[in-house]
Amino acid sequence: MSTTTTENTAEAFGVTPVNKVKRVHERGRYDRKSVYAILDAALVCHIAYVIDGRPYCTPTSFWREGDHLYWHGSSASRMIKQTREGVPVCLTVTHLDALVMARSGFHHSVNYRAVMAFGTAHFIEDPAVKLKLMDRFIDRVYPERSKIIRQPNAREFKATTMMGMEIEHASGKIRDKHVADEEEDYEGVRAWSSLYPVTQVIGAPVDCDRQLPGLARPAGMEDFEPGARLDELMTKTYRRTFG
Amino acid sequence: MSTTTTENTAEAFGVTPVNKVKRVHERGRYDRKSVYAILDAALVCHIAYVIDGRPYCTPTSFWREGDHLYWHGSSASRMIKQTREGVPVCLTVTHLDALVMARSGFHHSVNYRAVMAFGTAHFIEDPAVKLKLMDRFIDRVYPERSKIIRQPNAREFKATTMMGMEIEHASGKIRDKHVADEEEDYEGVRAWSSLYPVTQVIGAPVDCDRQLPGLARPAGMEDFEPGARLDELMTKTYRRTFG
Repeated sequence: MSTTTTENTAEAFGVTPVNKVKRVHERGRYDRKSVYAILDAALVCHIAYVIDGRPYCTPTSFWREGDHLYWHGSSASRMIKQTREGVPVCLTVTHLDALVMARSGFHHSVNYRAVMAFGTAHFIEDPAVKLKLMDRFIDRVYPERSKIIRQPNAREFKATTMMGMEIEHASGKIRDKHVADEEEDYEGVRAWSSLYPVTQVIGAPVDCDRQLPGLARPAGMEDFEPGARLDELMTKTYRRTFG
Repeated sequence: MSTTTTENTAEAFGVTPVNKVKRVHERGRYDRKSVYAILDAALVCHIAYVIDGRPYCTPTSFWREGDHLYWHGSSASRMIKQTREGVPVCLTVTHLDALVMARSGFHHSVNYRAVMAFGTAHFIEDPAVKLKLMDRFIDRVYPERSKIIRQPNAREFKATTMMGMEIEHASGKIRDKHVADEEEDYEGVRAWSSLYPVTQVIGAPVDCDRQLPGLARPAGMEDFEPGARLDELMTKTYRRTFG
């Protein structure tokens, strides 16, 4: 079990055959600061796991505490049925940052920040730990919200499965530049070359039509400004909750 | 090899133990029209595959033609080394559409559109087919662009690996609604409940600083308006290229 204060950012993840960035290896990042920053800017990840030799890739919400990653699902989930004893998973986060148009097909690209984190997924069995994590799952996105909502009842608590893994290996990969064409193509090819930034943003909130009168955006959610980038927002809410 | 005219949207994908939506099954979609719409609105997918029993999850760009999906990588990629004979993969696409805040932790959710597509990934070996696919990969994002850029040279052609798979099983999953709280919580819990839409948008283009004078956004790219939603843009460029 990690704590919220474990931030061993000085140390890099070891480079092994599992996490070594092989394709365009100069884009690789192994330091915890880079890996954490990419993870903490994300709400959604994709988790790969294996059942009967067949791969599955499931999107889900997650968060990080120290070198641990957490996510949840119901006990009906196919993944979780398999993972009661702990199974290897790869949890991947990707932020798409730009479309990059080159003068040859070969050099077309996208800018992105991605992390692949490898570990063994296990159930959170301890009820007190699980209850605390359920609160933190809410607060990680909406700081302080667990204090104002109804706490889980027995049925909900039972129906909620909380999963976790310690990061055993991880690597980040970042492309953050404009086009890198062949030298002769800059003048030799008459193709407009440009970069379109891509951002994920939140819009204006749409209140529940059964909202009680007198309620407004609660404390802790000051960063939820319409137009805010989701990656920046998630980084801010992460820091409000975990410091 | 699929053709661009194969659009068998009348038929649904069969529901099998592999692709059956188990968690919140009422969100499941098996008809090709729904599955195709989710795939064609996306530029990036996550592909899960297995090496030595261990799962990997890699983000990459992809596109669909009929019931076939294509993506590329270099011959250095760890996945592709394994897939020369064809290996099972799960290709997943996820669009995050909203954050949904409920009155209990249990009913917090996100709106999304996702597809999990299962098949056997193989190399595109035929050089003529591969060359055509390399052009379509560009045109799928930037309609007609393959006509104005430099064609691949021998080195680039060799260094580019094109992968494909036929969709054997697929399922979509969609959540598209506001909060669904417990009846007693609407009045019993004084927690602001709202929905924040989430969109991915393109910004204003940033030209290459070695742009030749006199070049402007070329024909076919009329939909690339700053502020456009990427999912809507990708759907439009898809239709411009594949009809």
